[in-house]
Amino acid sequence: MRIDLRSDTLTLPTAAMKEVMNNAPLGDDVYGEDPSVNSLEEKAATMFGMPAALFCPTGTMTNQLAIKVHTRPGDEVICDKLSHIYLYEGGGIAMNAFSSVRTLEGNLGRITAKMVEENINNAADVHQPVTRMVSLENTVNKGGGSIYDFNEIKQIKEVCTANGIILHLDGARLFNALVETNETPLDYGKTFDSISICLSKGLGCPVGSLLLGEKSFINQARRYKKAMGGGWRQAGALAAAGIYALDHHVDLLKEDHRRAKAIGEMLSVNSWVEKVYPVNTNIVLAQLPHNITSAEFVEKLKEKDVHCVSFGKHLVRFVTHIDFTDEQLAALKPRLDF
Amino acid sequence: MRIDLRSDTLTLPTAAMKEVMNNAPLGDDVYGEDPSVNSLEEKAATMFGMPAALFCPTGTMTNQLAIKVHTRPGDEVICDKLSHIYLYEGGGIAMNAFSSVRTLEGNLGRITAKMVEENINNAADVHQPVTRMVSLENTVNKGGGSIYDFNEIKQIKEVCTANGIILHLDGARLFNALVETNETPLDYGKTFDSISICLSKGLGCPVGSLLLGEKSFINQARRYKKAMGGGWRQAGALAAAGIYALDHHVDLLKEDHRRAKAIGEMLSVNSWVEKVYPVNTNIVLAQLPHNITSAEFVEKLKEKDVHCVSFGKHLVRFVTHIDFTDEQLAALKPRLDF
Amino acid sequence: MRIDLRSDTLTLPTAAMKEVMNNAPLGDDVYGEDPSVNSLEEKAATMFGMPAALFCPTGTMTNQLAIKVHTRPGDEVICDKLSHIYLYEGGGIAMNAFSSVRTLEGNLGRITAKMVEENINNAADVHQPVTRMVSLENTVNKGGGSIYDFNEIKQIKEVCTANGIILHLDGARLFNALVETNETPLDYGKTFDSISICLSKGLGCPVGSLLLGEKSFINQARRYKKAMGGGWRQAGALAAAGIYALDHHVDLLKEDHRRAKAIGEMLSVNSWVEKVYPVNTNIVLAQLPHNITSAEFVEKLKEKDVHCVSFGKHLVRFVTHIDFTDEQLAALKPRLDF
Amino acid sequence: MRIDLRSDTLTLPTAAMKEVMNNAPLGDDVYGEDPSVNSLEEKAATMFGMPAALFCPTGTMTNQLAIKVHTRPGDEVICDKLSHIYLYEGGGIAMNAFSSVRTLEGNLGRITAKMVEENINNAADVHQPVTRMVSLENTVNKGGGSIYDFNEIKQIKEVCTANGIILHLDGARLFNALVETNETPLDYGKTFDSISICLSKGLGCPVGSLLLGEKSFINQARRYKKAMGGGWRQAGALAAAGIYALDHHVDLLKEDHRRAKAIGEMLSVNSWVEKVYPVNTNIVLAQLPHNITSAEFVEKLKEKDVHCVSFGKHLVRFVTHIDFTDEQLAALKPRLDF
Repeated sequence: MRIDLRSDTLTLPTAAMKEVMNNAPLGDDVYGEDPSVNSLEEKAATMFGMPAALFCPTGTMTNQLAIKVHTRPGDEVICDKLSHIYLYEGGGIAMNAFSSVRTLEGNLGRITAKMVEENINNAADVHQPVTRMVSLENTVNKGGGSIYDFNEIKQIKEVCTANGIILHLDGARLFNALVETNETPLDYGKTFDSISICLSKGLGCPVGSLLLGEKSFINQARRYKKAMGGGWRQAGALAAAGIYALDHHVDLLKEDHRRAKAIGEMLSVNSWVEKVYPVNTNIVLAQLPHNITSAEFVEKLKEKDVHCVSFGKHLVRFVTHIDFTDEQLAALKPRLDF
Repeated sequence: MRIDLRSDTLTLPTAAMKEVMNNAPLGDDVYGEDPSVNSLEEKAATMFGMPAALFCPTGTMTNQLAIKVHTRPGDEVICDKLSHIYLYEGGGIAMNAFSSVRTLEGNLGRITAKMVEENINNAADVHQPVTRMVSLENTVNKGGGSIYDFNEIKQIKEVCTANGIILHLDGARLFNALVETNETPLDYGKTFDSISICLSKGLGCPVGSLLLGEKSFINQARRYKKAMGGGWRQAGALAAAGIYALDHHVDLLKEDHRRAKAIGEMLSVNSWVEKVYPVNTNIVLAQLPHNITSAEFVEKLKEKDVHCVSFGKHLVRFVTHIDFTDEQLAALKPRLDF
Repeated sequence: MRIDLRSDTLTLPTAAMKEVMNNAPLGDDVYGEDPSVNSLEEKAATMFGMPAALFCPTGTMTNQLAIKVHTRPGDEVICDKLSHIYLYEGGGIAMNAFSSVRTLEGNLGRITAKMVEENINNAADVHQPVTRMVSLENTVNKGGGSIYDFNEIKQIKEVCTANGIILHLDGARLFNALVETNETPLDYGKTFDSISICLSKGLGCPVGSLLLGEKSFINQARRYKKAMGGGWRQAGALAAAGIYALDHHVDLLKEDHRRAKAIGEMLSVNSWVEKVYPVNTNIVLAQLPHNITSAEFVEKLKEKDVHCVSFGKHLVRFVTHIDFTDEQLAALKPRLDF
Repeated sequence: MRIDLRSDTLTLPTAAMKEVMNNAPLGDDVYGEDPSVNSLEEKAATMFGMPAALFCPTGTMTNQLAIKVHTRPGDEVICDKLSHIYLYEGGGIAMNAFSSVRTLEGNLGRITAKMVEENINNAADVHQPVTRMVSLENTVNKGGGSIYDFNEIKQIKEVCTANGIILHLDGARLFNALVETNETPLDYGKTFDSISICLSKGLGCPVGSLLLGEKSFINQARRYKKAMGGGWRQAGALAAAGIYALDHHVDLLKEDHRRAKAIGEMLSVNSWVEKVYPVNTNIVLAQLPHNITSAEFVEKLKEKDVHCVSFGKHLVRFVTHIDFTDEQLAALKPRLDF
């Protein structure tokens, strides 16, 4: 039995999701005429209490559009040094938005209001980029699925408001945070100027992310989406999968988290592992000792048909998801026993 | 009966295509593991005799990636002033590739080898951008579906080769040209450094385009595709539609062309029309007299549930496609009789 | 006697100008403390009745800053196809400002209000760049020093105002127009949102141009100037030359124009010349017949120690300037007699 | 007596330098005809044993040109987080070169070969930018004028060579390092792919920096310089000052360093100062206690007509330079005694 824990992007649509996709009403989305895309955008906007939404092929596109619309060339974006927008979007902050980035060293990818405040550039000094936006990620992929304390977020928002700075959320795995905390999508909608959420990670859709924000913001994002090649046509089947996932897959994330915790426990007694990061959601990071590389560890598990990824020279990542079952979890235990 | 001739992007997948989509094997395309995407890329590369292919959400993305990979900031691209890459890709030549554009006035969107030769900048002059690439479009959308003479293309290629200039083809509607001429995809593959083809226009797929070229070119394009937000995941259903379309829909384009010619004849005797452009493929352009605007014309037809688009102040466009039937053609005739 | 008519950029500072330069009070311009730079900026702003000015190393920098500040990535700039900003600034509209360009075919580089009106993109269409600014050049270098009719400029301004479009003037040789017409710098200051003027062409300074506009516009331009490498330090000697030139060299331009007309007459009877463009200011363009290339013509004159430049395959340019004297003009006559 | 220690950019040309400037032979540098610019470029290239040099208005321009030529959009540049290219060039790495930046936490701005090695991205991973260049600064402004150990530089060079990475030096204050160590300009020329040196800091010129590197590199830099607005005309007077400074001012830097050490000692017994950074060259950084802000400190000294700058919330900077004399040093002592 193959056990693939490399990423929650790997999931395949369920039979029920596929039926919905097959029956989705379609139209040309560039003309604004795909009923399924329109429904998904409306549904997501309503869920977060935000005026408008935009359905895009990827979370990289929704994040990059947000940065590109919020900033002007030569501005600066503040984020944690573990942020996906900085590490894993191909240098897009610079290449797409022409903006500089100030990377802060937070706690497992989470920065604080105080850190933000201390890193705002002097807007009167022509030597320095203008600090235009702060981007948070929740949960933090590279932080091992760490969850932000919402009080900290609210304090960051206050610092941003006081300094005329825009606050964006990379919520690729926001629902993983939501099922573990007391906040609702509406709480996030009230706090952020823009939010990016992903449907093809824990929610199990084949393709798609959503960008949420003000109408004028989304209108400009739609324009840039077209120029960047995101103006797809009959995307309705993918949108229908998104609607289905928002209705049926959010609660399933708790199961992913339960299984991730179990994997964390297995790894914590594995002799090749030095330390397991706190497991809060669906991501497990295992730190290896200095004499074992992640490449060796990945390879060893591969021989047992267990698949994880290197996340640094001595760091490996396991991600649970909708296709990882309790049966697989049981089968995993003996394979991690070495 | 609604008759929608606004664009060949509007088509819906057929039942047969949907079945193929529903049964397509899927995987994560960012990991290179979507079997349907891989098959489509291989199939297209083989068809054109080119080393590699890349499946993307849109033709704008494939064109923009080609320009971005071929050029460096400050270079210049030569194309006809009617080119889609210049007019309808959101200013992407500048915004995505940081390249200047030299727009030439060809014949219905088709430039000549002589024109190219006369517009190559002096590479030794630091005032001027370096002429790095020529981009042709075939058929030319804004030229009324005009087809290039392949001999002219070969001469343009010679000029490019002699001057170290890259030659790209925006082949969004290349198959419309191929079914009307004697050349094969292999002929085009031998002549161009890169080719962009679209599956969601005349070929009737819901979403998708392909970029073709050398392996190193496609590798770099894949990198930029990710950073621009095109790194979708389980895109296999869309790819499977593409495979089906390449197998079953290419020959159907001839029917589109026959119906387009019939529309051209109807329009040539319409009293609101001054002139019909030559109808070579699936696009019909009708020039209106100075006292009738395209907005008025579009509105008048809209009242008869016939839909076309304005293509200039006194110019309207009709496009035939897989969802436009002979029955609709027959119903169109009386509605165009005024 | 060497006669150098290649460009009015070639001039050397006069003895009087050098004395002023040598005695100029200096300071660090990045700190805003160079008294000579500050005086020049104030003087120019007052002269044009505009709120602020910025002293820069080149006219390319002042033009590029204007475009960069006025536009956002993906916008479109309208200008004549002969414009310096398009042809001779290294593709900067795209590379520095990420903006697309719509080049119109005016009369000797001068476009009309009607042409502008017909080339404004539909702002609601996401396919097309947003038309954000119009840039005029006066006099037009590539148009043979042609002068705009100020009434046409005012009509262009009306079209811009009605459509929310910014109007910029590349006034590299504006003073050449001013000494031949009835308008004043104040008339131009009232009509344009920003103006670029050059001190190191006809005005005879070694280095420097000025950008004029609103305070917030100039503040942002100052920021971009720094990032693009224009934040020089003790530039006061160059600024002092500029002050001197504005006081003493403007009227001398009429002499340049008189001498240019004389050259135009000499060329009109030269057997290698097919046609001389109308000579309105200090630039003379001579069209050669199809069997004589500009390279041949330039070479032939070079042998007589007369220097001009190729401005196209069969087009050559002569420019009069402060270092070209009546004595040289007399010496030129026999050398052009062939 | 005003004592201005805000920066070594504030210096005014000496009488001897002004005489040289006044007598400098001039020409149009865009045409390559300014004899003084050509001499300076040759002199600097020879001094460093590098094939070519380019004279530019600022060190920001020379650094930005280097980054822009060495990288392609979407690449990554490694540097210390205190680097001038990152902090004080207006976000130019992103805005001018479209490159991402990886900022490392070195020792007073100096990174190590090991740090570089550990921060090279996996070139096969399309998520990550390609690590294309490393940029060092020597001395490090924000590190308090700290000097690199040349052995470390050589090891960084080895890592770069082994990984196909370009090595650039921001040598704005390289001569301050050279007069304190055993290396020569030739040693640096052999080790770096490109070097930027500044003439208008410690060397006392009013304006100007030089970029050094291979011929093809400088040719491309010259092209970008033009498009960015750096193509000045008769820059010869500034170049002549540069030649003079390289001949006469390098050794004077030792005096600046001696005076800086003296200031360091004065500050180390000042009751408002918590800690003085090691003083190696002409920069003195004083750390203030948490209850005294740099704004307060700067203001207090301003009242005594002593001028320094804030370099952080509790950090102030003093810089010695050619206009700061022993007389001023003596006058400074009582004013710092509080």
